[in-house]
Amino acid sequence: MALTQQRRADGSLRHLLTLEGLTRDEIESLLERAQHHVRRLGEPAPHSSALAGVTVANMFTEPSTRTRVSFELAAKRLGADVVNLEVQLSSRVKGESMLDTVFTLEALHVDVFVLRDAEQGVPAMVASHVAPHVSVLSAGEAHVSHPTQGLLDALTVLQHKKRCDGLAIAIVGDIRHSRVARSAACHALRTLGTTDIRIVAPEALMPDPAEFEGCARSTSIETGIEGADVVMMLRIQKERFANTTIPAGDDYFREFGLTAARLAKARPDAIVMHPQPMNRGVEIDGAVADGPRSVIRQQVTNGVAVRMAALEILAAPLAARKAR
Amino acid sequence: MALTQQRRADGSLRHLLTLEGLTRDEIESLLERAQHHVRRLGEPAPHSSALAGVTVANMFTEPSTRTRVSFELAAKRLGADVVNLEVQLSSRVKGESMLDTVFTLEALHVDVFVLRDAEQGVPAMVASHVAPHVSVLSAGEAHVSHPTQGLLDALTVLQHKKRCDGLAIAIVGDIRHSRVARSAACHALRTLGTTDIRIVAPEALMPDPAEFEGCARSTSIETGIEGADVVMMLRIQKERFANTTIPAGDDYFREFGLTAARLAKARPDAIVMHPQPMNRGVEIDGAVADGPRSVIRQQVTNGVAVRMAALEILAAPLAARKAR
Amino acid sequence: MALTQQRRADGSLRHLLTLEGLTRDEIESLLERAQHHVRRLGEPAPHSSALAGVTVANMFTEPSTRTRVSFELAAKRLGADVVNLEVQLSSRVKGESMLDTVFTLEALHVDVFVLRDAEQGVPAMVASHVAPHVSVLSAGEAHVSHPTQGLLDALTVLQHKKRCDGLAIAIVGDIRHSRVARSAACHALRTLGTTDIRIVAPEALMPDPAEFEGCARSTSIETGIEGADVVMMLRIQKERFANTTIPAGDDYFREFGLTAARLAKARPDAIVMHPQPMNRGVEIDGAVADGPRSVIRQQVTNGVAVRMAALEILAAPLAARKAR
Repeated sequence: MALTQQRRADGSLRHLLTLEGLTRDEIESLLERAQHHVRRLGEPAPHSSALAGVTVANMFTEPSTRTRVSFELAAKRLGADVVNLEVQLSSRVKGESMLDTVFTLEALHVDVFVLRDAEQGVPAMVASHVAPHVSVLSAGEAHVSHPTQGLLDALTVLQHKKRCDGLAIAIVGDIRHSRVARSAACHALRTLGTTDIRIVAPEALMPDPAEFEGCARSTSIETGIEGADVVMMLRIQKERFANTTIPAGDDYFREFGLTAARLAKARPDAIVMHPQPMNRGVEIDGAVADGPRSVIRQQVTNGVAVRMAALEILAAPLAARKAR
Repeated sequence: MALTQQRRADGSLRHLLTLEGLTRDEIESLLERAQHHVRRLGEPAPHSSALAGVTVANMFTEPSTRTRVSFELAAKRLGADVVNLEVQLSSRVKGESMLDTVFTLEALHVDVFVLRDAEQGVPAMVASHVAPHVSVLSAGEAHVSHPTQGLLDALTVLQHKKRCDGLAIAIVGDIRHSRVARSAACHALRTLGTTDIRIVAPEALMPDPAEFEGCARSTSIETGIEGADVVMMLRIQKERFANTTIPAGDDYFREFGLTAARLAKARPDAIVMHPQPMNRGVEIDGAVADGPRSVIRQQVTNGVAVRMAALEILAAPLAARKAR
Repeated sequence: MALTQQRRADGSLRHLLTLEGLTRDEIESLLERAQHHVRRLGEPAPHSSALAGVTVANMFTEPSTRTRVSFELAAKRLGADVVNLEVQLSSRVKGESMLDTVFTLEALHVDVFVLRDAEQGVPAMVASHVAPHVSVLSAGEAHVSHPTQGLLDALTVLQHKKRCDGLAIAIVGDIRHSRVARSAACHALRTLGTTDIRIVAPEALMPDPAEFEGCARSTSIETGIEGADVVMMLRIQKERFANTTIPAGDDYFREFGLTAARLAKARPDAIVMHPQPMNRGVEIDGAVADGPRSVIRQQVTNGVAVRMAALEILAAPLAARKAR
């Protein structure tokens, strides 16, 4: 989807399908608004009525309870009406009937579609067909995009490092299949000024050479994270181990797992991130995941805040409409 | 269920299981109230607190995400507490335990049951057992009844034609197995004064001769829709094609599919309706479904409005109770 | 889990995993608060905003629609944000990843976990790991504990008998595998002063001799319920019939089913209880279940009331926090 397709004629954001093409100002403004919704663990969750009268449909076609709950709570805490649906949207499965489902929901006055689908292109396809007042927010699209994850990663980095430029950030694991790596590395962090981004993976999990432009590549975790301010670990799907040259299970951990010993190669104040769910003992040692340099749970809290901010920004014209 | 069983002693509607036996005044009053809840696409959805303090349980035993969401949003937008359950109610499956589930929900202060079940008689059976303050609203019963669909179809016709009497209305497809055809044709439209109703189907999908009294029958779509003001297409279940004389897939489309060419036989201002989900290229050409004479999406919007109206009317004594 | 682990440093209840160790004052205070939420069938359900701003997650790993709906309505009627999840928590299935799910929800500002799991120890394990402001409420744990069921049983007895001491209470059926029997008999009723508790079961369904201390045992229902003020029937899982000496189906009913004739052995004003779902014609005759001495549906109504009370008491510090 071309960049301009995410915007309204006045340049404001209508859909959020990818972070590609967002300006630094736009990303910073999203993060600033998100920061207003961040609460410490134990404090009351943020609540407002900013989306009162707006209807949000969570359409998750992949099983992802935690991300669904994150979006569901974000919408509910803004006062929206929320419905959850498990619908198979993939165009190869259902053809035009997929769009008929979307049009039906639109006719039921669904204003915002939160879409998660394993097939590339589905969110853009939906966005290109819905009525002008309707917004689409991607909750994860195949291996290509996961914009709110990229934003929450950037917010987490900023909370700890106060800036993104001048940092060394290493992303470790299954880069090739990771929408998280694409959204965070290529779009959010890059746009916010990070130049030293390293992607670290076994050869078979490296992306095509044309992708991740400007990122240093390393097939050794020790080399890759050396001196890093931020170590972002990725989940490795166990399916990857079959029929490949990728070392499986314990072997993967031995070669690419983040241990305390390896983390010592990074800067002493480096933070450790993971988008979850984690395979403890495969890509990350449990002690590191729970250790003092882990900010993994904070990423989750930032996730709701970022999703609230994204919903508010996309649905701003709807909220204004209601107030009339 | 005899007609009077839907009513309270004072004659007001307590349950809505069928449109059979409703007076013209009652149907018109339901539709008038529904019309108040109709909003154009892009306008804020209707909201009120008419059902605040009332609990609605959606019990859907057939997979029907879209109808469930329609009822769920109708109830939420009236301020009700809503719970969704997937429970197998069919008496042949679970015997008395089915009623135990109903009594349990009743004891949890569920005030309105929205029931969808593939077995004939289940809504009436539940209605005959619940406490006097509880209402049952059918969301589709076997092949026999789908009252809110009949109402939304009538509302859609009225919005476009301003009246039902004097119209020629053709219903095309699997009439034999269609609760939509029964509720719309035999009850809603007939009661509102339509006399020229034609049912159009292959011989094998025609209802028994005793049914659809007073409706003209045609096994040719060209003849059946000639001069019609309204063409209501029905969904054909692909299971029907097996072991029958019904032409399958492409053949069905060739013989009974609604194409632009065939639609030209109807009146120039004829509207095209479909209860959804559609099999594009089987019972209807995609270009017709999306064309200027299609009011299919408007039917969906009318669906929420009709369901809100039905909930308000059935639960009026409950709402009054709360206000005390 | 040791008793003190359910409490905060100031002695107030933080978790409710078991009734074991609760004082008579505490149980009476819970029941008194619950009684405020009891409404007669047909009266408006109780509503308050006591838990506004609090987030409750219902995590049910066993299929139990009715108990889930009871907890869901209890939380919604107190104004909480509620999310439902089906997650397999059992530690043997997922190991540490189970706790990662809990930590993720905690980081999403879930304040109260309502947990149902078939594996013993899961609620206590979760309770021992969550942050200090978070509460865990067990909705049924393996065969060992079901505290809100024990409370609702006690409340039902009190409503009818005005006291628990001096009563003869017979619990009949699969005592061995019953968390209901353990929570009601060994904890709630005992603490409230009942001394004459009889457990009645076929030999194979009797608990180990070390359990149910002080309860009289009988393998004959006629003897066991003689002179009883309360007859609590338990559900028998049909799986128990396989490969055991337990009489199956009709035979079970013939030997252990509660019939009107058998009920005549109890006191003339004895009440009949059942935690549901019932196997009519197996452990209880339908006529008895629906008869004048049955209080089974009232148990259900008491269930929501008790769950509202438990949520209010556990989350009191959270609610206070919100008010600031």
